[in-house]
Amino acid sequence: MEDNRIRVGITQGDINGIGYEVILKTFADPLMLELCTPIIYGSPKVAAYHRKSLDLSTNFSIVNSASEAAHNKLSVVNCIDDEVKVEYAKADPEAGKAALSALEKAVEEYKSGLIDVIVTAPINKHTIQSDAFSFPGHTEYIEEKLGNGDKALMILMQNDFRMALVTGHIPVSQIAPTITKELIQEKLNIFNHSLKQDFGINNPRIAVLSLNPHAGDSGLLGTEEEEIITPAIQEMVAKGITCYGPYAADGFMGSGNYTHFDGILAMYHDQGLAPFKALAMDEGVNYTAGLPVIRTSPGHGTAYDIAGQGIASEDSFRQAIYVAIDVFRNRKNDKIAHSNPLRKQYYDKRDDSDKLKLDTIDDEI
Amino acid sequence: MEDNRIRVGITQGDINGIGYEVILKTFADPLMLELCTPIIYGSPKVAAYHRKSLDLSTNFSIVNSASEAAHNKLSVVNCIDDEVKVEYAKADPEAGKAALSALEKAVEEYKSGLIDVIVTAPINKHTIQSDAFSFPGHTEYIEEKLGNGDKALMILMQNDFRMALVTGHIPVSQIAPTITKELIQEKLNIFNHSLKQDFGINNPRIAVLSLNPHAGDSGLLGTEEEEIITPAIQEMVAKGITCYGPYAADGFMGSGNYTHFDGILAMYHDQGLAPFKALAMDEGVNYTAGLPVIRTSPGHGTAYDIAGQGIASEDSFRQAIYVAIDVFRNRKNDKIAHSNPLRKQYYDKRDDSDKLKLDTIDDEI
Repeated sequence: MEDNRIRVGITQGDINGIGYEVILKTFADPLMLELCTPIIYGSPKVAAYHRKSLDLSTNFSIVNSASEAAHNKLSVVNCIDDEVKVEYAKADPEAGKAALSALEKAVEEYKSGLIDVIVTAPINKHTIQSDAFSFPGHTEYIEEKLGNGDKALMILMQNDFRMALVTGHIPVSQIAPTITKELIQEKLNIFNHSLKQDFGINNPRIAVLSLNPHAGDSGLLGTEEEEIITPAIQEMVAKGITCYGPYAADGFMGSGNYTHFDGILAMYHDQGLAPFKALAMDEGVNYTAGLPVIRTSPGHGTAYDIAGQGIASEDSFRQAIYVAIDVFRNRKNDKIAHSNPLRKQYYDKRDDSDKLKLDTIDDEI
Repeated sequence: MEDNRIRVGITQGDINGIGYEVILKTFADPLMLELCTPIIYGSPKVAAYHRKSLDLSTNFSIVNSASEAAHNKLSVVNCIDDEVKVEYAKADPEAGKAALSALEKAVEEYKSGLIDVIVTAPINKHTIQSDAFSFPGHTEYIEEKLGNGDKALMILMQNDFRMALVTGHIPVSQIAPTITKELIQEKLNIFNHSLKQDFGINNPRIAVLSLNPHAGDSGLLGTEEEEIITPAIQEMVAKGITCYGPYAADGFMGSGNYTHFDGILAMYHDQGLAPFKALAMDEGVNYTAGLPVIRTSPGHGTAYDIAGQGIASEDSFRQAIYVAIDVFRNRKNDKIAHSNPLRKQYYDKRDDSDKLKLDTIDDEI
């Protein structure tokens, strides 16, 4: 019997943080192995160290590649040549090197078709920097290595609450000059397409937040709403994208208004992420939309402050696995649904008859 | 028997919003009249209209001034000469005029010592504008009329969760240029003093948020943290103010870290208010700190979308009354505690003896 469980590649991330803890806790539940075939890219020795020091009971098998991964087992691919020492909460370049090796191996095996999706445990963005990794984070690395030229859009999500950003890791002084109609529309296009293809929403409703307080208050508190954001929305609506706004950001989450939308596009980092995390910190998932590869990660970071204490919650990581699996299935369904479309049907106006031309041959298909 | 209940002056705000609804619902509970003597500045006719159309049972008496207000009753001072018509959800300049008349009368009676604190129902900030009112909102008006030259600091609060802002109603493009060390320190001083005097916290702990994402990430995402905010904090710490930071804003509320502080100082409007409202929308109270007068208001606005429907929650307005009363009492206690301080006790180093000079006369006191 062929097994068609989804093969989830998991990168170990920073070995001095809570990565292994949340991975091992997640797969302590045998039901998770019914859902997918998980392959950790990392180090069996390091995994064993975490398992022992945190008194966890999750078992795993050592394999050379995802091609050897057995169903109903958690497998670990060794990606590290040298010995590497775990020192909880230490920002260690050796740990950064180990994180990168795991990531590189996962990318390589993804390219070979050995895994279906990638779930990344958190890295330390400083220690991982090297000649081979000079990116702000995972998102940009994955975009470069597996994007085929497509642009990534980071979506922070918890169930149906999905938040994306027009601008990301830039100083506040650069936000206003960076916001353009084109940039907003680019993000809206990716967001809209992802909500359809990845989340199975036929006609997604997207809320666009304002840049300025109180949505600019009719120009008193800034002109970008009238000059840039509103025209951007109107043009997209004319193109058939269902988007609304701009909404004042301060009360949008508090009023519960956000629950009426499938996606929310914030103008900048803290505007979107501060209220998102206030509401959904523990179960937030980071999904990299817009790319051919499916990649998710938990909403938290390495959490050095609680590393090695055994108190980290695996909820967010488990959700990251769920989302990766859901998106994989949704894309498959979406492909099937669109693989054999009905032929275009049209009236030929130059014809006298008012009959639908069901019998004509449409060469375009 | 002298009654020393606190006299709470309440301004009616915009008569086409939910102001009267939340006022009347709050005083439907007879226990509220044990706590304070409430005086509404507004219109008995308008109050009666709301009472009837919303099917509320709260009774009130008509008086000419707070000086006539009876204990155990809700009193209404008529502040409007002409007839004014209630039209729910209508932005009406006549309603704006009525809101201003009520506010002016409350200020006048406060100056005459007839009321102890002011609680303002929400106004429509557009319709109230006139020659006599050209302010962004209540806060600036009260600062001008009753501030004695002191500067106001808006604090949004829910119980021990208190959020203040370094910059307020300005465009996002102006935030970074407006942030200076001096401005941060001015706000920290007012905040710290208010937390002590108004909330009875001996040594308040204040968290300062960063301007840029991830607290500037060691300069990669902006330099204001290193050049402005950190020095501002360090100087204030040296002066004895217990403040910490700068903290990255996005995870600060979500992680629950905010619960360890008595106050949080955000750098700009949406950074502070979006997560505050996400967590505390329904019971949030706006307190105008830094002024001799005590003024609070509910966290919500006129809420035209639900005006006249009878579904508005009075929780936030009730909390606004509670906070005004608490602050009044705390200031009284603070005054008593500091009215007769112990004399300074010191060792005179030029003296051979190591004895405390309890018997010396200290002329300074």
